Amino acid sequence: MTNFEEKTFHSETIFNGKVISLQVDDVSLPDGKTSKRELVKHPGAVAIIPVTEDNKIVFVKQYRKALEKTIIEIPAGKLEPGEKPAITALRELQEETGYTTEHLTYVTSFYTSPGFADEIIYLYQTQSLSKLEQPLETDEDEFVELMELTMEEAEALVESEEIHDAKTAYALLYLKLKGLL
Amino acid sequence: MTNFEEKTFHSETIFNGKVISLQVDDVSLPDGKTSKRELVKHPGAVAIIPVTEDNKIVFVKQYRKALEKTIIEIPAGKLEPGEKPAITALRELQEETGYTTEHLTYVTSFYTSPGFADEIIYLYQTQSLSKLEQPLETDEDEFVELMELTMEEAEALVESEEIHDAKTAYALLYLKLKGLL
Repeated sequence: MTNFEEKTFHSETIFNGKVISLQVDDVSLPDGKTSKRELVKHPGAVAIIPVTEDNKIVFVKQYRKALEKTIIEIPAGKLEPGEKPAITALRELQEETGYTTEHLTYVTSFYTSPGFADEIIYLYQTQSLSKLEQPLETDEDEFVELMELTMEEAEALVESEEIHDAKTAYALLYLKLKGLL
Repeated sequence: MTNFEEKTFHSETIFNGKVISLQVDDVSLPDGKTSKRELVKHPGAVAIIPVTEDNKIVFVKQYRKALEKTIIEIPAGKLEPGEKPAITALRELQEETGYTTEHLTYVTSFYTSPGFADEIIYLYQTQSLSKLEQPLETDEDEFVELMELTMEEAEALVESEEIHDAKTAYALLYLKLKGLL
């Protein structure tokens, strides 16, 4: 494979936020010319497909300021520094859905926007849910509403683009194709 | 559905780049408290699944500075201001693969990272490719290498996470499930 690596000769951090940071790198290209790369740094995240006893998938409806609208997603959340994804996944499942599980299975991982961001999402699933006796609170700036759908209902929403979030749509199709749901 | 809308009472643009911009909004939450939202603005993009006469899918290998590595993707590119996605899709197909087509079909669209970015990707496919007699040039800071794979080969790379890009993996599974490939 040809090596198209870009060497950084200058890097500037423009912004350091609570979720993301922004960095602009000056790089030298394979042909010797130079360019600027605008890079969003993200801590990485998890997403979980929780399936209930009666074979329904638990979704969350959440307002997304970036889109200025409420969308349907599977439960998800950011990694805390140094945290193992399976730990984050269990916490997010508990906080966002009020369910817990002793059997969380790793499914796959993927980069969401490699053109400008390093975000990676680790996907988990569980089919053995039990209700938490003492529900946890979501993050203080997070408001979600639950929604349970069969695979057929969810697939119809993917097709109509009412499920419009890539990680959610991909997770559903991945599990369906693997025969895991 | 409960209304979890967040009202913006202050918005600051931190950075305006050639690809993305970064904005930090102060919002009031449904419970009356306030929070900050870090928002990446992106012009939107297209991705294309090009399928050759002998039923192979054309991929591009491209170095992604955000990930500091070369990954396998379907051809893709950003929308120019005011440009219709189908126009962008044809141009990116031509520039990145050297193929053209008279039949580009819209498949679906999706948000890649709704937690922090507004990027939407419009997905197209074509199964009637012909070689351009006069190949176009890619963008001056873009270097790609082509790779043609059968659906079975591509699926194996999705499973092994060697195809690690969400839009690419999702596009493959979507078309397979719909019987379009």
